[in-house]
Amino acid sequence: MNKNNKKVNAIIILIGNEILSGRTQDANATFLSKWLNELGVRVEEVRIILDEQKVIVNCINEVRKKFKYVFTTGGIGPTHDDITSESISKAFGLKYEIHKEAFKILENYYKTGEFNEGRQRMTKMPSKAKLILNPTSGAPGFIVENVFCLPGVPSILRSMLGVLKNNIIGGKPIISHTINLRTVESEIAKPLSEVQDKNKDVEIGSYPFFKAGKLGVSIVLRSEDQSKIDDCNSQILKFISKKNIKQINKD
Amino acid sequence: MNKNNKKVNAIIILIGNEILSGRTQDANATFLSKWLNELGVRVEEVRIILDEQKVIVNCINEVRKKFKYVFTTGGIGPTHDDITSESISKAFGLKYEIHKEAFKILENYYKTGEFNEGRQRMTKMPSKAKLILNPTSGAPGFIVENVFCLPGVPSILRSMLGVLKNNIIGGKPIISHTINLRTVESEIAKPLSEVQDKNKDVEIGSYPFFKAGKLGVSIVLRSEDQSKIDDCNSQILKFISKKNIKQINKD
Repeated sequence: MNKNNKKVNAIIILIGNEILSGRTQDANATFLSKWLNELGVRVEEVRIILDEQKVIVNCINEVRKKFKYVFTTGGIGPTHDDITSESISKAFGLKYEIHKEAFKILENYYKTGEFNEGRQRMTKMPSKAKLILNPTSGAPGFIVENVFCLPGVPSILRSMLGVLKNNIIGGKPIISHTINLRTVESEIAKPLSEVQDKNKDVEIGSYPFFKAGKLGVSIVLRSEDQSKIDDCNSQILKFISKKNIKQINKD
Repeated sequence: MNKNNKKVNAIIILIGNEILSGRTQDANATFLSKWLNELGVRVEEVRIILDEQKVIVNCINEVRKKFKYVFTTGGIGPTHDDITSESISKAFGLKYEIHKEAFKILENYYKTGEFNEGRQRMTKMPSKAKLILNPTSGAPGFIVENVFCLPGVPSILRSMLGVLKNNIIGGKPIISHTINLRTVESEIAKPLSEVQDKNKDVEIGSYPFFKAGKLGVSIVLRSEDQSKIDDCNSQILKFISKKNIKQINKD
């Protein structure tokens, strides 16, 4: 846990034209966000960018100064369009070269004769990068300063988070509480806004939904402090009851 | 169609803490990307940002200069956390005030007595904004210069695209062609890279997949020019056949 208890933030960068063109629906951002949230790291931004070197270099050099942690997914495979490792090297002004430890890992992982040129390419990284081991398919991700580079294939990415955990120092985990109501947003907008004004430390979100043909609203309270959420919750339940609005079970 | 045929680009900004916290899986970015692609507009970046005024203002003022079109989704509802309209006003240095036309629309849309304070809030916009009509639930989106503000609820957003279409001048639509192979990326990395080197105008992507327990690779060719895609395709089929790699039907 972070000693000074300041909010620890992060950005997730998804690298890949296939997500931007709408061909692939990303499955990593939501998963990583929840996982980081539990470690007390708040994801404050997500970007999906093109796999073009200039784009990646500029983006990384902008965000690594603004966020405590930067996570990238995608672009560390064996083909010509996998340019994350080279781009990160460039962003940090580091050599892009064969990582000896990664080379050994993959040399052992593949059968004799199968460790071909494409696979060897996956061991080229920014010099002195710290490896993120990959228990699924061998090829590691890597860390340079506060930038963590992970693969794009969701099952592989997920299998690498166990080892990664120890490299992240989070703050207090953010607790959330949801109140689901059979109402519409405009009915509760005013009293909810008053509760927000009185409880600046709690983030109050209001999200309309349609379920089984009926309208409803989810109110989500988020804070690092359970007692503040509890306070806020009772203030909301009070005006809900006055207005005769029904609480429902959404799921 | 854009006369000079230059690539027309866009960025999509998803505004909302609920997507960042992992609570809500976004459904708008992929849909909008595909829709814009058909209009000849290439989405080159997607960002998911916090609903904090400073964050939104800075983001909009950065990207509206860099991209031909900026689309935002979310934050134009009736509650206190809907701050997109006010933030866009601030970004452009415009007054945030009741939009007369929007006010009339919602006054007619709701029954007498139901056009409450929360709903009236949805008619506050940057002064002189151009409306994007909403055939589903009344409350319009709006356009300021090259920034298009849409709601976050996917069904409502989609219903508004029909009218929006006429406000977008795209370039040539981007055509794509996919070749699915029973192989692994490292097997084709080298010859594929050579094809890319010889065909700089075609964007060639390589995406591994797992389906029914088997590994495969999708090669995706993208270009505005069908004949260039065809050329590229035959060059790939040539090395595929030499290597005895099987083409498969993925779906």
